[in-house]
Amino acid sequence: MGAAFEPAGVITLTTDFGLHDPFVAVMKGNIVRRFPGACIIDMTHEILVHWPAEAGFWLARSFEYFPRGTVHVAVVDPGVGTARDIIAVTMRGHLLLAPDNGLLAPVLAREARATIVRVEMAQLSRWGITRISATFHGRDIFAPLAAELAAGRCAPEALGPPADALVPSWVEEPEVREGAIAGTVITIDHFGNLITNIDASLLGRFRAPQVRLGGHTFPIRRTYGEVRPGEYLALVNSFDVLEIARAERSAADGLGLSRGAPVLVQETAPGA
Amino acid sequence: MGAAFEPAGVITLTTDFGLHDPFVAVMKGNIVRRFPGACIIDMTHEILVHWPAEAGFWLARSFEYFPRGTVHVAVVDPGVGTARDIIAVTMRGHLLLAPDNGLLAPVLAREARATIVRVEMAQLSRWGITRISATFHGRDIFAPLAAELAAGRCAPEALGPPADALVPSWVEEPEVREGAIAGTVITIDHFGNLITNIDASLLGRFRAPQVRLGGHTFPIRRTYGEVRPGEYLALVNSFDVLEIARAERSAADGLGLSRGAPVLVQETAPGA
Amino acid sequence: MGAAFEPAGVITLTTDFGLHDPFVAVMKGNIVRRFPGACIIDMTHEILVHWPAEAGFWLARSFEYFPRGTVHVAVVDPGVGTARDIIAVTMRGHLLLAPDNGLLAPVLAREARATIVRVEMAQLSRWGITRISATFHGRDIFAPLAAELAAGRCAPEALGPPADALVPSWVEEPEVREGAIAGTVITIDHFGNLITNIDASLLGRFRAPQVRLGGHTFPIRRTYGEVRPGEYLALVNSFDVLEIARAERSAADGLGLSRGAPVLVQETAPGA
Repeated sequence: MGAAFEPAGVITLTTDFGLHDPFVAVMKGNIVRRFPGACIIDMTHEILVHWPAEAGFWLARSFEYFPRGTVHVAVVDPGVGTARDIIAVTMRGHLLLAPDNGLLAPVLAREARATIVRVEMAQLSRWGITRISATFHGRDIFAPLAAELAAGRCAPEALGPPADALVPSWVEEPEVREGAIAGTVITIDHFGNLITNIDASLLGRFRAPQVRLGGHTFPIRRTYGEVRPGEYLALVNSFDVLEIARAERSAADGLGLSRGAPVLVQETAPGA
Repeated sequence: MGAAFEPAGVITLTTDFGLHDPFVAVMKGNIVRRFPGACIIDMTHEILVHWPAEAGFWLARSFEYFPRGTVHVAVVDPGVGTARDIIAVTMRGHLLLAPDNGLLAPVLAREARATIVRVEMAQLSRWGITRISATFHGRDIFAPLAAELAAGRCAPEALGPPADALVPSWVEEPEVREGAIAGTVITIDHFGNLITNIDASLLGRFRAPQVRLGGHTFPIRRTYGEVRPGEYLALVNSFDVLEIARAERSAADGLGLSRGAPVLVQETAPGA
Repeated sequence: MGAAFEPAGVITLTTDFGLHDPFVAVMKGNIVRRFPGACIIDMTHEILVHWPAEAGFWLARSFEYFPRGTVHVAVVDPGVGTARDIIAVTMRGHLLLAPDNGLLAPVLAREARATIVRVEMAQLSRWGITRISATFHGRDIFAPLAAELAAGRCAPEALGPPADALVPSWVEEPEVREGAIAGTVITIDHFGNLITNIDASLLGRFRAPQVRLGGHTFPIRRTYGEVRPGEYLALVNSFDVLEIARAERSAADGLGLSRGAPVLVQETAPGA
């Protein structure tokens, strides 16, 4: 059972569509045609193509900056046109809509009391959703459905039956071992910071943690300003996850590392 | 005569301005200064620089996803500051505003009953449009005019006299020959799909069409999921045009082809 | 003393965050959570990373295209998390909010009658601004503060004491010498035009000015259409600054020049 969903009229969009083509635009067109007062905010459209893991990672750490009652649409959907399902998750007063392809797994990992339904495709015509192409469900299903949900004309529980066995995440959650945490670089941000899936809450078990990545060891600092330009550091970033950064430079370029690189957090050896 | 235009308060913007500079932003500033309640949606600002053909192609296939009464502004304008005209097209309840440089030709090719007027520059002062630079009509003419039109303070027919002989399209419409259709790759999308200007409606004449592009022959499938990752296919995409794709990869990169490449559709030989 | 600030409900955002990550999105989330009716317009998020000079340059030349009463937020902030201040400038009926790192110097250079206050961090809790990370003040301070200011719940003068000695600009204003003006290429736009910090008003002192850049000399024309495709020209652009362009091509690529390149304007020699 999630907190009840009361629509706030706000819709966020997370896709891997980029901004070069009018793909995102026609989604918005389909939204405002149904719900002229919608407040539509782009979360990002630059998710690595066909990599739902990144979308779920950011969504999990961003959705609560929006008003309760926001509908969050995430379409990173390599399986579009095949038999994959669409799920709707009600959680902490927010509603998340995505393909059942593991995208929302990182969100669901953070909250036991989420309500999940599987969208019944045969019922979509109840909301006038009838012209559905084989390859663009973002425009033809997700956008109109988000409009109906955000406008309060369709309740999440009316979308279909409860869902349980979901497609698992594309990237495993960090593994907590004896004296170490093993995680993964999940994304690289605009500044070249290597952002891991290791939450700050996991670091409390260490007295003086240090971070190993690509054969290098990094101390954990509070902010970029604590090292000199060009120096590397690890820090808990503003989304409460561990990242490896380089002051005023790109750590990703400097280290030659990218998404998927394994990261290890360990206790600093006493004599170090 | 097109369907009458009743403004819905929505404005879309299509340009080749990119998003690095504040060019699009100041257009929006000029819109909200005149019409604070405007709903402004970016169609795309990444049209290939100075290539109106791409703007017209997408606009023709996207504008009807927006509410009737939307004002669509398209500024891809290599001739800015020269004597080129501005035209306003009323069509199917929508209004399209663009330079008369062939940009709107692909839109007009789809609808015989459009109303077209030529904007009388000397009359712009009636709507307080007076400070006009030599090089940025998007900000100085198109944006304020769109605001006036979307706010219902200016009717399309008041903009100027009917226009007839327009600048033709930059890319010819597909040629339908005996047993074959010859078209062109008009754009490459974010996923590397090669999108042609061949509409699905042209394919009905074939029993089993196949597509030739860059020396290769591709079968036509229904969706990406019908071939294995890495394999090529042709399909009618969600905008009802023929595209050549590569499952989970970039067809453009794989084939080394780009805009302008000729595409041929033919009947599959009986023995093939 | 600046013109009084009466909020219009409009907020612009200028950052170096890019659009790949949800950084801008969560700023907007924090704004609409506090001020659901906010009209948020992206100025640009592609300021060269950690180069406040470019943000200030564009802001100075763009802010007045927005309604009086707009709140302009600019976050290019290499010093985030260190002791740098935040300032709020009231000027010509607009409000500008930025780190005190020289970013707003190009704006202030244009108006003697601006009111500047230094934001008192200890007072932020009065507006419920309490959860402040070390590395993302854009989301945690600037966005909520802009929402309060734009909603009219917080007056600029309530933010803190008047500020005087500000961090100077990152790039010097053009130097006017005997018979010459020495300036700098401050940005390259989407079309590859090299845009300088030399305002048109400085050119009035010349009878027939010519522009020197990277060992080349360029005549000043009125618009791109006055030279043939591929030819270089200098012109006063639509933001009233001198730029060096190449008709239908990229001057930056052609000349191999970039930000920081010195530019000289001189009188054309009589015999030339």
